[in-house]
Amino acid sequence: MSKAKAPQMCDPHAPVVILVNPQLGQNIGTAARAMANFGLSELRLVEPRDGWPSEWAVKAASGADWILDGVQVFERLEDAIADLHHVYATTARPRGMTKTVITPADAGLDMRARAGRGQKLGILFGRERWGLNNEEVSLADVIITAPVNPRFASINIAQAVLLVAYEWYRHEAGERVGMETDEAPALTPGLKMPDSRPATKAELIGMFEHLESELDAAGFFRSPDMRPTIVRNLRNMFERAELSDQEVRSFRGLIRALSGNRQRHKNRKQ
Amino acid sequence: MSKAKAPQMCDPHAPVVILVNPQLGQNIGTAARAMANFGLSELRLVEPRDGWPSEWAVKAASGADWILDGVQVFERLEDAIADLHHVYATTARPRGMTKTVITPADAGLDMRARAGRGQKLGILFGRERWGLNNEEVSLADVIITAPVNPRFASINIAQAVLLVAYEWYRHEAGERVGMETDEAPALTPGLKMPDSRPATKAELIGMFEHLESELDAAGFFRSPDMRPTIVRNLRNMFERAELSDQEVRSFRGLIRALSGNRQRHKNRKQ
Repeated sequence: MSKAKAPQMCDPHAPVVILVNPQLGQNIGTAARAMANFGLSELRLVEPRDGWPSEWAVKAASGADWILDGVQVFERLEDAIADLHHVYATTARPRGMTKTVITPADAGLDMRARAGRGQKLGILFGRERWGLNNEEVSLADVIITAPVNPRFASINIAQAVLLVAYEWYRHEAGERVGMETDEAPALTPGLKMPDSRPATKAELIGMFEHLESELDAAGFFRSPDMRPTIVRNLRNMFERAELSDQEVRSFRGLIRALSGNRQRHKNRKQ
Repeated sequence: MSKAKAPQMCDPHAPVVILVNPQLGQNIGTAARAMANFGLSELRLVEPRDGWPSEWAVKAASGADWILDGVQVFERLEDAIADLHHVYATTARPRGMTKTVITPADAGLDMRARAGRGQKLGILFGRERWGLNNEEVSLADVIITAPVNPRFASINIAQAVLLVAYEWYRHEAGERVGMETDEAPALTPGLKMPDSRPATKAELIGMFEHLESELDAAGFFRSPDMRPTIVRNLRNMFERAELSDQEVRSFRGLIRALSGNRQRHKNRKQ
């Protein structure tokens, strides 16, 4: 069942996911996949309805087999959390309990801080039908409730695992897209192609002048009064695209191609 | 099929979710449920493999039936995005494309800012097996890539919908994300002209096809093998510029002007 695909990815400080009385093997598998997506690896089950192991779980895990292989099954929630220092309970609705309620985002930060201090953490997720009961919630230190559409608040269990795992992971990742190591996320249009560089302004202006002279030749600017405004708007449009040197060359080829026959035609007439 | 459970929850500014060639009805249903959790309601499908409607989808939607009832099915992605102003493509891995890549969190902020300016937005999600192809990605303005475990980067499609929908919703929900102002700045270049609006995708695609047909006529694509790549790069370049409707009209005028004499010359020869 195991693939060698993702070995040794266990972060000993990553929170343990505990599914209480899960009904469908498929949800267990999808939860395992979500854990794998976001760097969690320890999964515990309390009384899975259909027993364990589960072929449905394997199928839904899409290769996160090392997580399923490491699953521990418990009869009682108390035993499943016995070695943990701090436990979060996920609930969809307020419980009228005197207990701190935080968002997944705050939970992500809190888990990072606690893990950094060496605490072993766990997150409880309830049954598909009706979540965790009050006794189970009372075993947790803190409640996590996602901001959710109040008219449709019931989140699938694997989806809930995904959200909390995502919030755990993205703080580690420093929000680095795709974990491309030392590359910062591009918040403004950046050039991603490895073999190209941003065009210099000289290259860009050369392209503008090429385009504008062809437009002059083609009679594009009907009124001389309007020419400066139209030229400025066109230049703005291309500036916004933050062209690479390669793109400037391509675009000049395009201008030549479009105006090509007109040029050749003109030359013949001379 | 409909239940009266969640009426009138449509936020006309909420982004449209577009699933391209989804394989499993169950994933469509789970995606609809995730949308309902986070206040999205408009779902479009491009060529669902097993047809539409789908009993599997209904079962997996767990009551988000008003979303399934409102599904629109398209044969071509171009038609599915025709009325949209700004489109995000979700991808799991870098594409070597010259296109802005942002995280789901930044996408949430960006979508709020744009929706606040009246733009109609869409988010593309690819097939279960291998996501979106490069041509599909090139129709989008921006790429969304979640920070994810690089050794297990493939996110289930419904999970991906959940993440982006969550990031959209939590800003509405007023969760503080380190930004206290009520109006978030757009993270990608916005339009500055007061009397113009962003081009719709239909307008943009019309411009692309106009340009490409003129380039075909001019013999610009010397090798048929290279045509798709060159077309994609050109489209990406223009997508990046976020053209207004006015600019699309100007650029089409420019194409006509540049290719005009060639056309007239050709006509004379006929």
